[in-house]
Amino acid sequence: MPRDARMVSPEVSETGQVTFRLFAPEAKDVLLTGNVTRHELAPDPAGKMQKVPFVRMVREGDVWSVTLSSLTPDLYTYKFVVDGVETVDPNNVYTVRDVKSVQNMLLVPGDGSAEYMVRDVPHGTVRQAWYRTAFDNSERRLTIYTPAGYETSGRSYPVLYLLHGMGGDETAWSELGRAAQILDNLIAGGKAEPMIVVMPNGNMARHAAPGQDALGQVQPEFYLPHTMDGVYESHFPEIVEYTDRNFRTVPDKDSRAVAGLSMGGLHSLYTSSSHPDMFGYVGLFSAAVEPIQTGQPVAELYHDRAGQIRRQFEKGVKKYYIAIGVDDFLYDSNKVFRAELDSLGVPYIYKESEYGHEWTNWRRYLVDFLPVLFR
Amino acid sequence: MPRDARMVSPEVSETGQVTFRLFAPEAKDVLLTGNVTRHELAPDPAGKMQKVPFVRMVREGDVWSVTLSSLTPDLYTYKFVVDGVETVDPNNVYTVRDVKSVQNMLLVPGDGSAEYMVRDVPHGTVRQAWYRTAFDNSERRLTIYTPAGYETSGRSYPVLYLLHGMGGDETAWSELGRAAQILDNLIAGGKAEPMIVVMPNGNMARHAAPGQDALGQVQPEFYLPHTMDGVYESHFPEIVEYTDRNFRTVPDKDSRAVAGLSMGGLHSLYTSSSHPDMFGYVGLFSAAVEPIQTGQPVAELYHDRAGQIRRQFEKGVKKYYIAIGVDDFLYDSNKVFRAELDSLGVPYIYKESEYGHEWTNWRRYLVDFLPVLFR
Repeated sequence: MPRDARMVSPEVSETGQVTFRLFAPEAKDVLLTGNVTRHELAPDPAGKMQKVPFVRMVREGDVWSVTLSSLTPDLYTYKFVVDGVETVDPNNVYTVRDVKSVQNMLLVPGDGSAEYMVRDVPHGTVRQAWYRTAFDNSERRLTIYTPAGYETSGRSYPVLYLLHGMGGDETAWSELGRAAQILDNLIAGGKAEPMIVVMPNGNMARHAAPGQDALGQVQPEFYLPHTMDGVYESHFPEIVEYTDRNFRTVPDKDSRAVAGLSMGGLHSLYTSSSHPDMFGYVGLFSAAVEPIQTGQPVAELYHDRAGQIRRQFEKGVKKYYIAIGVDDFLYDSNKVFRAELDSLGVPYIYKESEYGHEWTNWRRYLVDFLPVLFR
Repeated sequence: MPRDARMVSPEVSETGQVTFRLFAPEAKDVLLTGNVTRHELAPDPAGKMQKVPFVRMVREGDVWSVTLSSLTPDLYTYKFVVDGVETVDPNNVYTVRDVKSVQNMLLVPGDGSAEYMVRDVPHGTVRQAWYRTAFDNSERRLTIYTPAGYETSGRSYPVLYLLHGMGGDETAWSELGRAAQILDNLIAGGKAEPMIVVMPNGNMARHAAPGQDALGQVQPEFYLPHTMDGVYESHFPEIVEYTDRNFRTVPDKDSRAVAGLSMGGLHSLYTSSSHPDMFGYVGLFSAAVEPIQTGQPVAELYHDRAGQIRRQFEKGVKKYYIAIGVDDFLYDSNKVFRAELDSLGVPYIYKESEYGHEWTNWRRYLVDFLPVLFR
């Protein structure tokens, strides 16, 4: 392949500037896109500086490049667009799938990304296993984190059930969410209790992530059946029973948490409120607080939100945690939901962040939420 | 992005033809490359039909496409090259990293790929865990498969140690090698005994696969230090001890196998011959039968191959398995090695296949080798 083997892309300088490069002698136009361009501005037709969803790269000989100085330490995703064709950076092997799209990952080291990095600390074990559901009498795949020392400690651990969003699956939190790295680092730093984290698949119409079930290499879809019809929430005890049976858990309410992002927030809200003796801790990250209109009938489970939550709090909740970004399309519905909690007089932790409905926030919320648990 | 959301690529027809498509209105030349083109021919300058490493795609409007009828059921990898720029297929989320390169995967269903598919059979658990080595007093990552039923059966299992090649890591056999799918299917079909499979990282200069250790997002390299200097082989008992301590194994020689591809074949050969009481079964897949010249001094471990193997067989070997492709660059050195085994008068199984030094063969060898074990 006609590519400069010595080319480095992306290159992070000691002063934190990041240079992206692509060997493309025939190209007429090369763009950099992804959340790496989040702070970039370009003039609009009237000459006013505006945020732009891409940065144009500049040609020098056969190589196109651009250097950004705005990338504070964090985990980013990006792609190139070469004459209208999306491509991953051929010099960067770090890629990740987010629902229907494969992008490059870029970890800019520093304070803001320290908990996402693999550090020289004791590491937990991550496994992909299968549990059986009575829903369609099948096996369903889940990802399970057990903390460093689990294999030999003999002790029992509390459990966090951590749920993905629409279009996601049991790999989302471990891959895009850096859950294992965050847990390893926070536990090693004494910021979080050692715990087991169970990351199930919330798409009852599927048995596993794309490519991991008998459907073969189908392309991922949003809006699968049975995502917001109450089936997942009503079958959730199967996952808890599987976990308590196969792992050394502390099998009581105050040692169980459920948290999720977006659709996983919906699942966390209604699983915990419809099983008020199951979870002591609840986390709603950019949550859909009511089922999104998908043409499916709204299940009975979702009918009496306020009444359910009142009964849930009467039975006891240790911590109820809500976080959302100011640019999130679910911001307003979360505001209505918080007003409902206020009118019920129930306590909750509320964190408002920059940005919108994206993994940058969900990783940060997890880092913020874990220290709240099981203490 | 200007891309036709309804575009399907690759599309496998009912008659087994595969069509690749790319929306690229500005492109002047689009190629399809990867082992999907293995059986394609094109005329050379003299008009003679020759094998080619790519197929030229044809433009129709804004979409480039090509249809291949030569893709028998198997697992393939491919990429596009758009005006000289390598890109993955933006309509196919199935990608896999092979050392330094990210490519698309295509599973053509049928008899030849049946064991690589996720089928509706009981599934084992796959975990990424860490063991401690005295080499540099660090934790090293490994991938471990436990068969379906392991969690509840109470019984003990034999163990296969399955080793990767140069540039590979502890993710190679599970991702490129489809080890979990092959094990699930062969065990469910009664073709292989239920077993534990341990897939360690054979690069002693690294603690884990790229991105999974504290080095951060470095790019993968061939020719790392300590790959062929005997350090891995001499520290291998640490991996066996870790496995026997943490899993329900049958901790004896006749319930242990070691097999590997290329450099992993070297490691299997010399780990088993230098620890003649450890492994009853040995598998050499396209093996480097002597250390490749890397400028490193040749360790004592590698000095007396024939003598070591004679002593190994005197102590007892259940099965010794060798497989290689006729186009492999290691074919000749394997021929010399087989002559050495013949002159020693020791028995072995030998399988010669089509193709060369590639995953197509290593997956097929694993399917062929597993039924030999522990019976």
